[in-house]
Amino acid sequence: MPRYALKIEYHGAPFAGWQRQKEHPSVQQAVEEALRKLEPDCPGIGAAGRTDAGVHATGQVAHCDMAKDWDPFRLSEALNHHLKPNPVAILEAARVDDDWHARFSARERRYMFRLISRRAPLVHEAGLAWRVNHELDVEAMQAGADRLIGLHDFTTFRSTMCQADSPVKTLDEARVEVADIPYGQEFRFYFRARSFLHNQVRSFVGTLERVGSGAWTPEDVTEALEARDRAACGPVCPPEGLYLVGVGYPDDPFTS
Amino acid sequence: MPRYALKIEYHGAPFAGWQRQKEHPSVQQAVEEALRKLEPDCPGIGAAGRTDAGVHATGQVAHCDMAKDWDPFRLSEALNHHLKPNPVAILEAARVDDDWHARFSARERRYMFRLISRRAPLVHEAGLAWRVNHELDVEAMQAGADRLIGLHDFTTFRSTMCQADSPVKTLDEARVEVADIPYGQEFRFYFRARSFLHNQVRSFVGTLERVGSGAWTPEDVTEALEARDRAACGPVCPPEGLYLVGVGYPDDPFTS
Repeated sequence: MPRYALKIEYHGAPFAGWQRQKEHPSVQQAVEEALRKLEPDCPGIGAAGRTDAGVHATGQVAHCDMAKDWDPFRLSEALNHHLKPNPVAILEAARVDDDWHARFSARERRYMFRLISRRAPLVHEAGLAWRVNHELDVEAMQAGADRLIGLHDFTTFRSTMCQADSPVKTLDEARVEVADIPYGQEFRFYFRARSFLHNQVRSFVGTLERVGSGAWTPEDVTEALEARDRAACGPVCPPEGLYLVGVGYPDDPFTS
Repeated sequence: MPRYALKIEYHGAPFAGWQRQKEHPSVQQAVEEALRKLEPDCPGIGAAGRTDAGVHATGQVAHCDMAKDWDPFRLSEALNHHLKPNPVAILEAARVDDDWHARFSARERRYMFRLISRRAPLVHEAGLAWRVNHELDVEAMQAGADRLIGLHDFTTFRSTMCQADSPVKTLDEARVEVADIPYGQEFRFYFRARSFLHNQVRSFVGTLERVGSGAWTPEDVTEALEARDRAACGPVCPPEGLYLVGVGYPDDPFTS
């Protein structure tokens, strides 16, 4: 059975997350149903990152095993046809080796979070960013983010439901960019690590927003981290600003 | 009665356009209903540009006459409260002279159109841009756009329903920008004129897309323009990529 890697974009709002669930629609189910329109016996698929309910992706990666030898471009086009009207798009399909695995071959996950500060409600960005109606200090947020980089026990910043064996992870990048927009500012947070804990990015951003608002100091982030206590975390921010933007592989099978 | 100018952002999808209609929801109706939550006898409002069904705005301008002397910031906040859950936001309210008029004082309208070329369906930009699945030549489109600039009889590029007295208008700017996006390109068209005819921008973009695809030459745009015949126009493109981004006034009442 030839194996294909799929790069997947989706809007998180209508889904209970990536992973298939009995009672709620999931992105995995939408993609599997499209695959089974092509090959009724197509086995289930797995993805590099199990995004939560409401979380978006522009670069999720999954792999599938097909009975037929599909031209990768035709496979992506056929899947996009059958995915309608779900807000899910196959950006690229690529033939990979039989032992290539979307999750286990991955060496890096990249997340981006959009946070908009302005008084008026969001209109075109509604559901695509988190809005706060006060000003934020980008330098303070970056100073707080700097304190998260490196090898740490991230117990403070993971959900109590997290199933990872260990809370010890290495955060390779935590970067905050700001751009002026009419009547406000947009902040983009970029996080990069081999893997993330459950709710880790939303716990980071919720905490860094407190630093940006002046309620916390950057030093408070270090104290929260060192507490290794979930109760020391800032508020977990909402999912609608979060995007899984990319997954890194030793031999990236995709062209973009 | 103190008069206020309102800068308004809206998502066009749920509305039959700016203008109030008997049977269909309109942006005007949404804003007037919010105003009447503040002052039940508030008179109706007029706007600088009567956008069509499905067309967005990030800089529509209207004016309203209030009985009370409102602090402009409080007026915008109160209106945003009552506009929920409509995808309409008051970006700013400003006190203006009694003879200031959103439509008749305007000296310039600015429109922007988002056109995305990529194979996969749009996900996060769905409803916010027009997608085509072939490549487009930006230089050819700019060469076509250049032929529209200046004083012309734009009969070819206006709807047969257009109620303007004359089809003769001056187009001050027609600019095309391109940016690479993952798996495609995004083109932004910027048009600026004292006023526009009905469907003029969508007629321009639909025609220029034909130039970008290679079906038309830039010279064909001149021929279409000189025909002064609606039948000579390219296909009118869909509304979801179109934004009224700004209105120019001699003494702009707004801060941004």
